[in-house]
This record gives sequence, structure tokens and C-alpha cells, in this order.
Amino acid sequence: MTESIKILGISGSLRKRSLNTRLLEIAQSVLPGGVTLEIADLSAIPFYDGDVEKEGLPQSVLDFRKKIHEADAILFASPEYNSSFTGVLKNALDWASRPPKGEPYAMPPTTGKPYAIVGVGGRYGTSRAQSHLRQVLQKMDMPGVNQPEILVQNQPVPVFDQDLNLTDTVAVQLIEILLKNLVKLVGQTRAVQ
Amino acid sequence: MTESIKILGISGSLRKRSLNTRLLEIAQSVLPGGVTLEIADLSAIPFYDGDVEKEGLPQSVLDFRKKIHEADAILFASPEYNSSFTGVLKNALDWASRPPKGEPYAMPPTTGKPYAIVGVGGRYGTSRAQSHLRQVLQKMDMPGVNQPEILVQNQPVPVFDQDLNLTDTVAVQLIEILLKNLVKLVGQTRAVQ
Repeated sequence: MTESIKILGISGSLRKRSLNTRLLEIAQSVLPGGVTLEIADLSAIPFYDGDVEKEGLPQSVLDFRKKIHEADAILFASPEYNSSFTGVLKNALDWASRPPKGEPYAMPPTTGKPYAIVGVGGRYGTSRAQSHLRQVLQKMDMPGVNQPEILVQNQPVPVFDQDLNLTDTVAVQLIEILLKNLVKLVGQTRAVQ
Repeated sequence: MTESIKILGISGSLRKRSLNTRLLEIAQSVLPGGVTLEIADLSAIPFYDGDVEKEGLPQSVLDFRKKIHEADAILFASPEYNSSFTGVLKNALDWASRPPKGEPYAMPPTTGKPYAIVGVGGRYGTSRAQSHLRQVLQKMDMPGVNQPEILVQNQPVPVFDQDLNLTDTVAVQLIEILLKNLVKLVGQTRAVQ
């Protein structure tokens, strides 16, 4: 079941030393056998604009949608800004969920795609951002891994060292379990289409 | 109380003939006496990026924040994409809520700023988008007008004609009441600081 499973990592932060993007890299270090995790680059995706869409999906959006289509599952890393997930991530999802136009698939590439979420924030560990994100992904008809929740608290005690290693070893173990559960969910959705 | 009150209209859509932006224009046509409503242009605001912020807030962001600071109240027009408000709007709020840097005010310009929301969508009239938006604005410490809710339903029967006039006259009346309530809220927050 764990053979050749491709996960696409999507971070809601554009910052280079983002701790949330770092969680995706940490996930890369604890992948189950036969699983790969590529991290998407959202920096070229423009703001969603219905007038632009009418002219045709921008190349960066087509590329992003193709990566989602080719992946077996998505791993989101979600910072929390103002009690919700980021505008950067919402915008990417708004493009990803549009109907296909001249693409070799009939449904939006996100439809039915299994996902899991990781997040690191302050005392509440991005819990509210993840709740909003789950509501949006439900509408997009994506099946999600419910447990464990990865709500890494970087306050009051910072859990990343200067080299951005995650010193919270329980969190690392939970990410490992999360990935196994995501692989299991991929297997389930493959078994019964 | 209605003398020289400036409202800033912020639409979550970039589309030129956006029905939500249109609601702001309709609001402009039913303003209480002494009230002005300017519609903000979000098209030049970049994606929020902590690395960019470190170098200094971009000019378009400074301009947007100044407009918010100088306004007495905000009127949001919120489309609903995937059960939430748009990435475009969330991104603008994420910039607007950052601490000031070299600006002539001590708090983020959104803090304490009264707001109201209008929205037009399908059968559910952007109700879920507005709920998410209110949660975010609560975190940003903005007092909101609770009633009436402007949840314009453009399905199953379209309520805009070809010239984008709103044929739902009850909705127009509700927008008029909403604006009066927003002006009242501005008066209340001015009276007791």
C-alpha cells in the first residue's frame, strides 16, 4: 500500500525560513517507505481574478493544478494569521478548485484528493486556522485525515533551535503517524473509487 | 452625528464587473447625508511575505493602510469562494493588521475600526464567507454591525439586470439601513473612546 505514493506539500507561508514550511521538510525526513513528498512553490501564482480566468488559466496556475492532479495526497502546512489560514493559501485553493479548462481531467484536481494538515504557531498552535481550512477543504470535497492533529506550539517555549530543528520530539512522532494515516487514507480511496 | 463620516469600501473581488463590488456602488447611491464612501483598489497589493515585511511595508500596502486609518468605518463586500471569503481579501487584511512601522499611528489601522459587510452569492448569499470574515475581524478587534445581514441571493432567480442594477429592492433598503447602523456605530465608538 505504501508503494509509489506521491505527496504534494503546500505551505501557506512564502517566507524563506518559515517554520510551517519547515514542518514539511521535517515530514520529508520521516516519510514511510515508498512515499515521496515534494514541496510546491506558490510564489508565481497570481491573485484570483475572474477576468483573468476568462482569458485562460495562467501557466503558473496550470502547473500548480497539474502537480495536485499528479499527487496522491496533499500535506498542508498552515500558519495562523488573524485566527484563520493565510490569504496566500486561500488564493491558491481558489485557483485550484476552478473547473478544468483544456486540462486532461474532468474535475478540479483537488476533488476527492486526500489531505492532512500540519501547523506551528503560538500558544494555540494554529488550531483556529486549521478549523477554517478544514471547512474550506470539505466544500472542495477533499477527504481529510482527522487524527492526530499537528498543532505545534512555539510559545511560551520555542521548540525550534537556531538551525530550525524541531526539538519537540513528540511532535515529530505525531507527524510520522499523520503521514502513515494519510497513506492509509490514500489506500482506502484507491480501493473503493 | 452623520457629519463628515468617511467610509472605505473594500471588495474581495478583483473582477471588473463583480457583483460584490457593485454592491458597494449601490451603497454609494443610498448613503446617509454627510457620509462619503470611497472604494479601495486592492490590485496593487502584493502577497503577504514576512521577508518582504522585514524590508519595510510596500508602498501599496502603506497607501492601503493610510486609507483605512483615515476612514471612520469599513464596508466590506465579500464574495464566497469555497465556503469562505476570498484569498484576495484575506491577504489584504493580513497586511492591514500588521504593527505600524514608521507610520503616524501606534496601532494597526484596523484596530477598533467599525465595519459592516455586504455580500451577493448564490442560494446561500455568502453566509458562510461572512461568518469566517466576522471571526477574523473579531480577532483584529474591529467592532461590527450585526444587523441587518446583507446576504443577497442571485440564485435561483438572478437579481441584477444587464446594467448591473439590483432589482431586489428589499436588499437595497436593507443596505440603506445597514449604512445608518454603521454610522450609528461610528458615533458610539467616537462618544466613548
